[in-house]
Amino acid sequence: MLKPRESIAALDPYRSPIASREGLSLDLNENLAGCSPRVLARLRTLRTADIARYPQREIGERLVANFLGVNPEAVLLTNGVDETLCLLFSTYLREGCELLFSDPTFVMYPIFGQAFGAELVRVPAGENFAFPAAEILSRISPRTQVIVIANPNNPTGTVAAPVDLLRIVKAAPDAAVLIYEAYFDFYGETVLEELPRHPNLFVARTFSKAYGLAGLRLGALIGPPEQIGFIRRFCSPFNVNAVALACLEESLADQDFVRDYVAQVKQGREQIARLCLELGLEHWPSSANFVLVRVGKNAGELVAAMQRRGIMIRDSSSSPGCQGCVRITVPARQQMNGVLDATRQALREIRS
Amino acid sequence: MLKPRESIAALDPYRSPIASREGLSLDLNENLAGCSPRVLARLRTLRTADIARYPQREIGERLVANFLGVNPEAVLLTNGVDETLCLLFSTYLREGCELLFSDPTFVMYPIFGQAFGAELVRVPAGENFAFPAAEILSRISPRTQVIVIANPNNPTGTVAAPVDLLRIVKAAPDAAVLIYEAYFDFYGETVLEELPRHPNLFVARTFSKAYGLAGLRLGALIGPPEQIGFIRRFCSPFNVNAVALACLEESLADQDFVRDYVAQVKQGREQIARLCLELGLEHWPSSANFVLVRVGKNAGELVAAMQRRGIMIRDSSSSPGCQGCVRITVPARQQMNGVLDATRQALREIRS
Repeated sequence: MLKPRESIAALDPYRSPIASREGLSLDLNENLAGCSPRVLARLRTLRTADIARYPQREIGERLVANFLGVNPEAVLLTNGVDETLCLLFSTYLREGCELLFSDPTFVMYPIFGQAFGAELVRVPAGENFAFPAAEILSRISPRTQVIVIANPNNPTGTVAAPVDLLRIVKAAPDAAVLIYEAYFDFYGETVLEELPRHPNLFVARTFSKAYGLAGLRLGALIGPPEQIGFIRRFCSPFNVNAVALACLEESLADQDFVRDYVAQVKQGREQIARLCLELGLEHWPSSANFVLVRVGKNAGELVAAMQRRGIMIRDSSSSPGCQGCVRITVPARQQMNGVLDATRQALREIRS
Repeated sequence: MLKPRESIAALDPYRSPIASREGLSLDLNENLAGCSPRVLARLRTLRTADIARYPQREIGERLVANFLGVNPEAVLLTNGVDETLCLLFSTYLREGCELLFSDPTFVMYPIFGQAFGAELVRVPAGENFAFPAAEILSRISPRTQVIVIANPNNPTGTVAAPVDLLRIVKAAPDAAVLIYEAYFDFYGETVLEELPRHPNLFVARTFSKAYGLAGLRLGALIGPPEQIGFIRRFCSPFNVNAVALACLEESLADQDFVRDYVAQVKQGREQIARLCLELGLEHWPSSANFVLVRVGKNAGELVAAMQRRGIMIRDSSSSPGCQGCVRITVPARQQMNGVLDATRQALREIRS
């Protein structure tokens, strides 16, 4: 009888992360301002040959490398940042080795880690989700093959200090250390400039958040050229689609769009924080485009009450340390008052 | 020091399969008729939200399942058919197990197979690339975890009889058997209807060939729902981009486009066969959208002479049994006379 590898059979059954696409979706940390109009304009110039021919990833890699100020051989474009994880994990994880990460964090780390055969070593965050640098350092072992750290973290929006990240990178020279900077643009701190000094340091970026290209699937893995070269050996040469590649140049060029959206996010997360103070809800200062809010034991009721008002937010109760919490993506400027009002009403409803 | 898994370090360094995108590309088996104009029209209706939001694969899976007449739970859409291979291989291959396939075949099988830790068991094709059914049956062992068979095969265009495929499926109940039907539409035979009777049988399809969507990256893995469910557990929920999903319905609906292109291919491969007879070149009857032609020791010179005429063809000499062969994608109707003339001239040039 055909059987998948045990580590895959042991995973939870799949549940679509998309509950419904009706209404205002504040549950997936998408860009609520959309994407640059220049991207849409470029997309509309595509011709039959752009659709029918295989894509050329190399052109996009040169653009991204130039934008980031790194060597093109250090950049591998990927089918969203999820593929970055799959490629890195399948390159370095061996059966019986360890994947080290702090909890709570992005849900795909343990799924991909387990699928590729690693033992999961979870380090709980400190008080108020403080980055557990000392505890991570103490859990590095000869079996540690990959360490992955989201910075800013998801679902908390909290951050790790670069100095702590680099201590971990240095303490685990035999492991690949991935700093997952999907929410970099809302934060501003990066370890990208440290790459040339560390032969085991990788950075992941995405165009799904600040650039608003989640539908096009475009991520980037940046790392030591020799190691990126190993990954290129087995990565599909056609992993990034032609539409994403065609739109990349306009997306990078329109930094006004990115700046404006980042400004909306920064203002919006303050407005959400003020609402939390007003309503007596615990929350955590966020450096990303979402805010984690503790509602208490009726968090699920708040999610449902918001959904009745046409707004989807994420119940984060199943994340370690996040019992009773919801994660709310920061809406765009013109949506904000409606969201604040709906949240007040929904909370009144569930508390009454 | 950071090291990738040994099987990955042992792979050949990456070389882009795209030599140049200038001129007429007959080297990648793309659809030279382009894609349906209805796909392009649909693409131009996309709005900002379609770009900025995460894609919903499930909608596309229902469309494809309905078109194929199978259960939606039997269908997993993938980022091109390359991802189909990666997912299947990483689900069933374990370090030290065997991946069984005949040679020559699609170059990605050994690359992905080795990357995911399998020992490669290559069975040479018979005379005139006849499908080596008996030899494959004799090489099935308790360590055989995946068997992959391209039908029609690439780069030969030759086919395997369904009865032989099903004997292999039955003889290896503990292995996943993937029939890779990327070129199905140019052939017409499939084992798809056999799926419900075999709990270890998978079929892969692509929209890159007959449908002309190579740039959009859309493949499908069809298999036993329980097994597909295992793969779904760790596959990224956002592996297929929103543009491919948005265009899928129009692409499937425009069967006139597919029929016309398939007719062009069938006529075109006969014209190429006649040219080979005229020029005294050995070739093999093809059931795909390309023809394998033996040029002899100056195959590389023919490739270069064609390139000087603005036409790219593939030197297949490095494929086992294909020394001195080139693979020519069938051009579209209106390109055919130019290609035939250029081939005559180029051959005259290298023979003189």
